[in-house]
Amino acid sequence: MATALIVLAAGQGTRMNSDLPKVLHPLGAAPLVAHALRTGAMLDPEAVVVVTGHGAEAVERAVRDWAPEARCALQAEQKGTGHAVAQALPLLEGFEGRVIVLYGDTPFIRPETLEDMLAAPADVVVLGFEAEDPGRYGRLIEGPEGLARIVEWKDATEAERAVTLCNSGVIAAEADLLRRLVGALGCDNAAGEYYLTDIVGLARAEGARAAVVRCPEAETLGINTRAELARAEALFQARARAAALEDGVTLTAPETVFFALDTVIGRDAVIGPNVVFGPGVTIESGAEIAAFCHLTGCHVSRGATVGPFARLRPGAELAEDVHVGNFVEIKNALLDEGVKVGHLTYLGDAQVGARTNIGAGTVTCNYDGVMKHRTEIGADAFIGSDTMLVAPVRVGDGALTASGSVITEEVPAGAVALARARQVVKAGLAPKLFAMLRAEKARRQAARDRGDA
Amino acid sequence: MATALIVLAAGQGTRMNSDLPKVLHPLGAAPLVAHALRTGAMLDPEAVVVVTGHGAEAVERAVRDWAPEARCALQAEQKGTGHAVAQALPLLEGFEGRVIVLYGDTPFIRPETLEDMLAAPADVVVLGFEAEDPGRYGRLIEGPEGLARIVEWKDATEAERAVTLCNSGVIAAEADLLRRLVGALGCDNAAGEYYLTDIVGLARAEGARAAVVRCPEAETLGINTRAELARAEALFQARARAAALEDGVTLTAPETVFFALDTVIGRDAVIGPNVVFGPGVTIESGAEIAAFCHLTGCHVSRGATVGPFARLRPGAELAEDVHVGNFVEIKNALLDEGVKVGHLTYLGDAQVGARTNIGAGTVTCNYDGVMKHRTEIGADAFIGSDTMLVAPVRVGDGALTASGSVITEEVPAGAVALARARQVVKAGLAPKLFAMLRAEKARRQAARDRGDA
Amino acid sequence: MATALIVLAAGQGTRMNSDLPKVLHPLGAAPLVAHALRTGAMLDPEAVVVVTGHGAEAVERAVRDWAPEARCALQAEQKGTGHAVAQALPLLEGFEGRVIVLYGDTPFIRPETLEDMLAAPADVVVLGFEAEDPGRYGRLIEGPEGLARIVEWKDATEAERAVTLCNSGVIAAEADLLRRLVGALGCDNAAGEYYLTDIVGLARAEGARAAVVRCPEAETLGINTRAELARAEALFQARARAAALEDGVTLTAPETVFFALDTVIGRDAVIGPNVVFGPGVTIESGAEIAAFCHLTGCHVSRGATVGPFARLRPGAELAEDVHVGNFVEIKNALLDEGVKVGHLTYLGDAQVGARTNIGAGTVTCNYDGVMKHRTEIGADAFIGSDTMLVAPVRVGDGALTASGSVITEEVPAGAVALARARQVVKAGLAPKLFAMLRAEKARRQAARDRGDA
Repeated sequence: MATALIVLAAGQGTRMNSDLPKVLHPLGAAPLVAHALRTGAMLDPEAVVVVTGHGAEAVERAVRDWAPEARCALQAEQKGTGHAVAQALPLLEGFEGRVIVLYGDTPFIRPETLEDMLAAPADVVVLGFEAEDPGRYGRLIEGPEGLARIVEWKDATEAERAVTLCNSGVIAAEADLLRRLVGALGCDNAAGEYYLTDIVGLARAEGARAAVVRCPEAETLGINTRAELARAEALFQARARAAALEDGVTLTAPETVFFALDTVIGRDAVIGPNVVFGPGVTIESGAEIAAFCHLTGCHVSRGATVGPFARLRPGAELAEDVHVGNFVEIKNALLDEGVKVGHLTYLGDAQVGARTNIGAGTVTCNYDGVMKHRTEIGADAFIGSDTMLVAPVRVGDGALTASGSVITEEVPAGAVALARARQVVKAGLAPKLFAMLRAEKARRQAARDRGDA
Repeated sequence: MATALIVLAAGQGTRMNSDLPKVLHPLGAAPLVAHALRTGAMLDPEAVVVVTGHGAEAVERAVRDWAPEARCALQAEQKGTGHAVAQALPLLEGFEGRVIVLYGDTPFIRPETLEDMLAAPADVVVLGFEAEDPGRYGRLIEGPEGLARIVEWKDATEAERAVTLCNSGVIAAEADLLRRLVGALGCDNAAGEYYLTDIVGLARAEGARAAVVRCPEAETLGINTRAELARAEALFQARARAAALEDGVTLTAPETVFFALDTVIGRDAVIGPNVVFGPGVTIESGAEIAAFCHLTGCHVSRGATVGPFARLRPGAELAEDVHVGNFVEIKNALLDEGVKVGHLTYLGDAQVGARTNIGAGTVTCNYDGVMKHRTEIGADAFIGSDTMLVAPVRVGDGALTASGSVITEEVPAGAVALARARQVVKAGLAPKLFAMLRAEKARRQAARDRGDA
Repeated sequence: MATALIVLAAGQGTRMNSDLPKVLHPLGAAPLVAHALRTGAMLDPEAVVVVTGHGAEAVERAVRDWAPEARCALQAEQKGTGHAVAQALPLLEGFEGRVIVLYGDTPFIRPETLEDMLAAPADVVVLGFEAEDPGRYGRLIEGPEGLARIVEWKDATEAERAVTLCNSGVIAAEADLLRRLVGALGCDNAAGEYYLTDIVGLARAEGARAAVVRCPEAETLGINTRAELARAEALFQARARAAALEDGVTLTAPETVFFALDTVIGRDAVIGPNVVFGPGVTIESGAEIAAFCHLTGCHVSRGATVGPFARLRPGAELAEDVHVGNFVEIKNALLDEGVKVGHLTYLGDAQVGARTNIGAGTVTCNYDGVMKHRTEIGADAFIGSDTMLVAPVRVGDGALTASGSVITEEVPAGAVALARARQVVKAGLAPKLFAMLRAEKARRQAARDRGDA
């Protein structure tokens, strides 16, 4: 059966003590809302609607980045979860099938759990969990025919409060039923809000079937404070590290490696201590990332070695057996097989052919103050140390640039390019120079001393 | 009432296994003694006296750095805490009010606790704590009129040993009373030392009032070994991280961020993993410090972005929206609004005007082997990659330096400065060069092989 | 009595999910097998034999690196521990004394434990441990005359399963006895393998004495999965950190420092947060390694300061009071007393005399595309910023190179070498240039817009 998702992401998250909307706070190098979107995407939904509110524009940008197929519905005023879903439903007009309502601040629900909900034989399905400390959660009261009703803590009897099966807020329902029930919701309560939860009672009242699907409490973890976010990050990382080890990745010090939501690493890749992955990184089997590396939006192929102290930025593509060494930054650049960039280099907006060696201190001068330009270097070339490649510029296959050269014009294949002054040696001058400098220093010191006196 | 502080900092700390005096070992990027000084400073004391002994000169330097208003008294021989206080009292001659005696190796006492001591209605106030494991601590024996006496463990009866209220050593007393009682202390004990603690008995004997103020045991944590210091550091960092989260700072991985005693970070600032703060750092709201940054004595304004892999040293001042990128070091330099320093650069003893762009590989050559000199760059300038700015030198507003140039003379506003050789291309030379080098390598290898044979 | 070691290192370690042989996975920056070899070496053995199998060639290389005196015996097929020892024995022909059999995947056994085994008054000694959860370990059944027999879990009675003394697999035996018993082993069991363990029964059957030596369970920790390896690494590091603190090393944040198996650090050396030691590092007393440093195969002398963000590679030798600053890489280079290399520099295959100052952005251009060459710099020299030293090249004592120079020929002592173009200033050109660039950008944008339409 077809599936659609509604992700509620309108809240501000006052307790975060932040101007940033809650669902944009980062978890695993992705905005919180991306986690629910990613989980939902695994169900291959026909439609995804995100309900935005606080910081709607910024949240929409994040949604575009992480789920381009999703659409956004604005909830201009925050009048409860039922009201939020009502804003989303027009964008699902004509959709037939099941709708799942997820929360942008609840990142850990697994796709398997959602599949259980979709498979449950009921018209409305609520995700519940056995709470270790049920506290003030709403209770799910089961009867002979599945879920009888949901009771808010403040309305619950002693007997109901003794129930430990709690409401996660995640709900799945038939689209048509959902439309009808949400339309019938009232706001006759202390807060004057429309509660999505109330559809269960409405459904039961009209004889529809309601059921509970259970998941571990950890899946339903919502985030309300920065301390909770920090704990969620720790949990996310612990899982990502364990999964990587399980997959055959070598992590010398797993507790110091930070994964992003979408990091992919092959078997027998070696990741040293203190490596940080931003979004969009793939590392092939057998590649090696040394300590103190920072990677985002890049691809590292089999046999490549990176770092320590290397930074790969978006668009860095390292082919097999490439070596990127220390204090090197690569951005939007393709490095073909066996390229070596050992030290103190910036390659941006560039392409480098196979086996080319890039000397220490090389810079692609890609920005002229107004525009960015590309640098193209052929295969088997030798770029001498401290070569400035003033883009747009090309260096041909097998060409050589002398160290310290500023290359402003094309270097044809096989050519040698020089742009430097000849060395001049002035014998015996150094001690005289230093003597002069020392005398000047003494003079200044004396002047200062007089001034102080 | 006026307050004065005496901080005891004369001990060597034999169990630290170190030549460094104990109170100079670092905690939160500050010497241990700075913590007590900082706490004491919050009481706005009229006078502060630090008693030095082992490594007196080095301790005095640290005191000058962290509490310039404090004075030091030398305790040439270590003859007990009472003797130490006696060395301090002459520097408080004429002072009337309360004196608090703190310890340089006890960093966690809170100012609120000291205020409780000052407010206690007694002539002598001792800071006590309920010990989880009282062990061999001195016991505080209370009577109907407050603190009756302090009993050393070895002198205590079974009943007294069952008391869990222990002596922290911190004492507050009226200045005149303290002078009289310290003058009356004897050293008739096994160690032949003068114990400050004995003033309680003397005070009671002359009918003065003594009282206990209680604080949590954690506040009284003293440091005697490196393992204890490492645990104290972990505790300090845990508190600083929690406080930052509470204040609305975004810490992706709080457990990898190291704060200094005086780090100040604004709300919604973002601090990535693996950031180390030395002393004297302030980060404004909304600034962003990426992973792997090292900051000391610097200021980062709203909207500025730093790192990854950036180092800000003392005197680095980043105005709003400045960007400092990877492998960049800034020292004693003012970067005005919107300046960009993206890659592989050293700016030291410099000033850079608004919106100026500094190319990769730029260096302010601030040292001539004898003196340091300043570099001044105007607003809206463009410093090409690999520009050497040989200080003292000025580059005017809107000026441009060509990449690879060594700038030794003033560049007026709006001018273009070049200092580089023209590019020369020698067609077809590279393969010949490499062939020669390969032949030479083969020749050498053959020579070595013959030599080996 | 003479001692010989056999280290079993033939297994593949299927559960590691890796192509790398299990004993080559890294622990403390050394292959697993190095740990047993290093522990064994402390007994000063007359001979060491490593039994290789999976990945024999790679394992042999590791053995050569970490125990050059050891020899390797190939176990082409894995037919059990008894079979493995049988492959090793021919290399111990003629040896008389005790043989200890260790395991390449069991890194934590202490030399003191092995000495206890050698001292035990028995012909065959088995290392046992009291298991917290004995599970399916083999049980050691003691009788009135020492070790009666070893029972596999699956063959054990209920009473035997209640025994908590378990078999570590480590065995010591008289060489002649071992030869005879191993020769008599059968493989009449489910796996069809020869079990070394069975020699205990054979020894007892012929009236020889067998005994158990006990060690803490933690010493016998074997490694079978990546998660176990990660836990072993954490354990190794925890011990190394505690030992360093005990030795009087200052570790600001011990939990962020990664030691190698053979790291040596002197008293009162200061190691900042996030420092990674590869193999072969010695740091003298009082040296200081700041945060974010990566050191391998190097020596740092008293009073030297390194980092933050420094990388010392094999062959880096820093004499007293050397300063190596940020974004600096040193490889195979001797830096004499008081040399300063502050920023953004690569020194490889070099020698630098005392007190010489190396400016920011300096590179030793040691590779010409075919061969590596050396750079020699004298004492009291001043290498200007961005100097390219095109090796082979020499700079004499007290010489100076101007910043931005490419040095291709010898600079004699006391000389000044320049290789740079004179600065040319074109007044008023910059705004024109930027205007042109902006116009060009607008033109391109317009062309793109037309193309899109």
